[in-house]
Amino acid sequence: MQMYDLINKKKNKGELSKEEIEYIIEGYTKGDIPDYQMSAFLMAVCLNKMTHEETANFTVAMAESGDILDLSAIHGVKVDKHSTGGVGDKTSLVLSPMVASLGIPVAKMSGRGLGHTGGTIDKLESFPGFSTVISSEQFIDNINEIKLAIVGQTANLAPADKKIYALRDVTATVDNMSLIASSIMSKKIASGADVIVLDVKTGSGAFMKSYEDSLALANEMVQIGTLAGKPTYAVITDMNQPLGRAVGNALEVKEAIETLYGKGPDDLLEVSITLASYMLLGAGRVESAKEGKELLLETIKNKTALDKMAEFIHAQGGDSEFVYNPELLKTGTIHYDVKSPSDGYVNEIKTDEIGMASLILGGGRETKDSKIDLSVGIIIHKKLGDKVSKNETLATLYANDDTKRKEAKKRLLNAYVISKEKSNRPPYIYSVVTKDGVKEIR
Amino acid sequence: MQMYDLINKKKNKGELSKEEIEYIIEGYTKGDIPDYQMSAFLMAVCLNKMTHEETANFTVAMAESGDILDLSAIHGVKVDKHSTGGVGDKTSLVLSPMVASLGIPVAKMSGRGLGHTGGTIDKLESFPGFSTVISSEQFIDNINEIKLAIVGQTANLAPADKKIYALRDVTATVDNMSLIASSIMSKKIASGADVIVLDVKTGSGAFMKSYEDSLALANEMVQIGTLAGKPTYAVITDMNQPLGRAVGNALEVKEAIETLYGKGPDDLLEVSITLASYMLLGAGRVESAKEGKELLLETIKNKTALDKMAEFIHAQGGDSEFVYNPELLKTGTIHYDVKSPSDGYVNEIKTDEIGMASLILGGGRETKDSKIDLSVGIIIHKKLGDKVSKNETLATLYANDDTKRKEAKKRLLNAYVISKEKSNRPPYIYSVVTKDGVKEIR
Repeated sequence: MQMYDLINKKKNKGELSKEEIEYIIEGYTKGDIPDYQMSAFLMAVCLNKMTHEETANFTVAMAESGDILDLSAIHGVKVDKHSTGGVGDKTSLVLSPMVASLGIPVAKMSGRGLGHTGGTIDKLESFPGFSTVISSEQFIDNINEIKLAIVGQTANLAPADKKIYALRDVTATVDNMSLIASSIMSKKIASGADVIVLDVKTGSGAFMKSYEDSLALANEMVQIGTLAGKPTYAVITDMNQPLGRAVGNALEVKEAIETLYGKGPDDLLEVSITLASYMLLGAGRVESAKEGKELLLETIKNKTALDKMAEFIHAQGGDSEFVYNPELLKTGTIHYDVKSPSDGYVNEIKTDEIGMASLILGGGRETKDSKIDLSVGIIIHKKLGDKVSKNETLATLYANDDTKRKEAKKRLLNAYVISKEKSNRPPYIYSVVTKDGVKEIR
Repeated sequence: MQMYDLINKKKNKGELSKEEIEYIIEGYTKGDIPDYQMSAFLMAVCLNKMTHEETANFTVAMAESGDILDLSAIHGVKVDKHSTGGVGDKTSLVLSPMVASLGIPVAKMSGRGLGHTGGTIDKLESFPGFSTVISSEQFIDNINEIKLAIVGQTANLAPADKKIYALRDVTATVDNMSLIASSIMSKKIASGADVIVLDVKTGSGAFMKSYEDSLALANEMVQIGTLAGKPTYAVITDMNQPLGRAVGNALEVKEAIETLYGKGPDDLLEVSITLASYMLLGAGRVESAKEGKELLLETIKNKTALDKMAEFIHAQGGDSEFVYNPELLKTGTIHYDVKSPSDGYVNEIKTDEIGMASLILGGGRETKDSKIDLSVGIIIHKKLGDKVSKNETLATLYANDDTKRKEAKKRLLNAYVISKEKSNRPPYIYSVVTKDGVKEIR
């Protein structure tokens, strides 16, 4: 086999076989295929597309380029949830203890945040003593015992994806649905879960701004999962404004705990239990998502999810006292209310800008090596469709540095579009994509 | 300016400005733009195409990446002729002395042959003592004095083309009309001629096998020349069989001299004077190609072209006696007649195979460093449409090694398709492409 011929085949709109795709991924990971051939191939893929089958083979080959987590020692069906990323997205913190409290193993491998979307690992470190650096033995033991454990990503997870991603980033070959979907799914498949539930965000704070693109990405990922033998569900959820009210690590943890107490915001609860209901469905625990939702709401009412959270924090070295007294969580010392400059309705929230305001306060990473301040962040008071009077508080900043606070204030004001006409609130959830098709929900 | 953005622009079917193209060519030649970005760009060009204007700018930027020959010290309009390459193509040897004998300066920079198509430089070295390594001063002096000089290509002619060609060769980005045309034309433009006449071969022995592709290439090159301010004519000529009867360096020189004596084959004469007539037209020497042809035929009748050839060979150190007694030219000592295996008509000649037979005898280069035997080659006796009896001679091999002779015989027999039905002879010339459009001739 020759890379030249495979580039040429894709250039001429040919379909590559499983063996041909494995040859490309293996050769490139090893360094036998040079960057200049891979980039020509990736451009041909961008312009001539890959079929669902090619994309699935590409994804599995990337997953197999490094370590594949062996979760066979865990009893039951292992379900993983992944989000394409958004501002104020703390659903993992809410749904993981809910699902685990129903006896379904949640084996989560999570990344740190980069840019303005925070990572679950960072958020959990708000609990003093909590560690995500645990051995695979302890990881598996914890799951078998309490059904829930979360570890940081290992270095050798899908190295082919890492290398290809870096090349795409400098050769203008980023925006192809097959390549985006395979990059996400290769890591999920390498993480060893049996069932995958995807939270595909759509809107101003999401990677995919339009519903059409989000749907295409969801479809592509569900196809990959199905062809790779992993039942996959994708829920398309709104990211035209932050999810819930809290943005920033410790603030988000607090809001997640409040939600487990039954006092969380509606949108966060609805998105969390919808995602969780598909995890239960995928695990065979319930017959329908509706049945799953009822069970899940019960774990809040009877506090089993809250207790599961405390048990989980304790098992990984954290102080579970913070779960029962979330006001103990350290938050920024400067509290600053950002006021509305005019009367009207919140017509648009540039969600990326809210994320940037939080990053500026110190809550996000500009580069991989940035140190983050877990205590800073923002509480959103006014959301889309809300009526607002001049000088009424739009949001409260939690800061530790007044210069940063000033800059964050500017960003925050810039994020809000207040206008005279009343606007509609976006739905929390748009649709669910399964191997059988798309079900509209909004 | 960022290469990333320019790749992205072409990926999204954008049109690049002159400045953007210059940035790419300059950056890549210098090594500032890495191979992996250039190959992604070239693939985007292959799939999304370049406009005529982009192609012309690309070509001129490549020409300007190295030395541009300064021919301003030569009096009159300098005309160059270039062939896309074929088997038995010795038109340069025929038309250069013809055109020069009419007072039009012919300043030719020529390459050596690679593969089975021979180079003019190699052929001329059949004259003992002849040298193409002459100083630029002598080159210009000779042209001013006798109107004709031929030198080998300098190393620094269009280095961008050299580097891009090597990359295209390993990234499956060869077969794009803009890139093929710009590669040829960049070297022609750097060679400093005022007017360019192109011999675009079409058929089984040509780079472009189909007439449609040959026409597209001709069109693209004429557009480039026109936009670069160099009047350009392209004549599309047949290469479904070798041109003339001789294939191989010394044998071709002999046939060229016979043609200057008025005893050459029809096809070689017709193609040579047609190309030469457009050189005269381009130089402003005649009003029409028809008028040019009449003048050119006169140079054969009155032997001025033959005398010009002798003068030219002498001026570059060769023995002009060989022009008047071409039988002095050394040819292979083994003469072997290849016989027809059956009765019928010559229905097809796989011209590439004839070229390969000559290469095997020692007349061509397998790699750039191969040494070639100028004395070997083939004389074709039966051409397309000819009637042939079993055991009648198809062609005579001129060899110096019996093992090679045997292998060449196999190749030659494989090149001929003899069938019962009488087939048509292809035309010598198909059409002429100028900036005003295509004129069919056949």
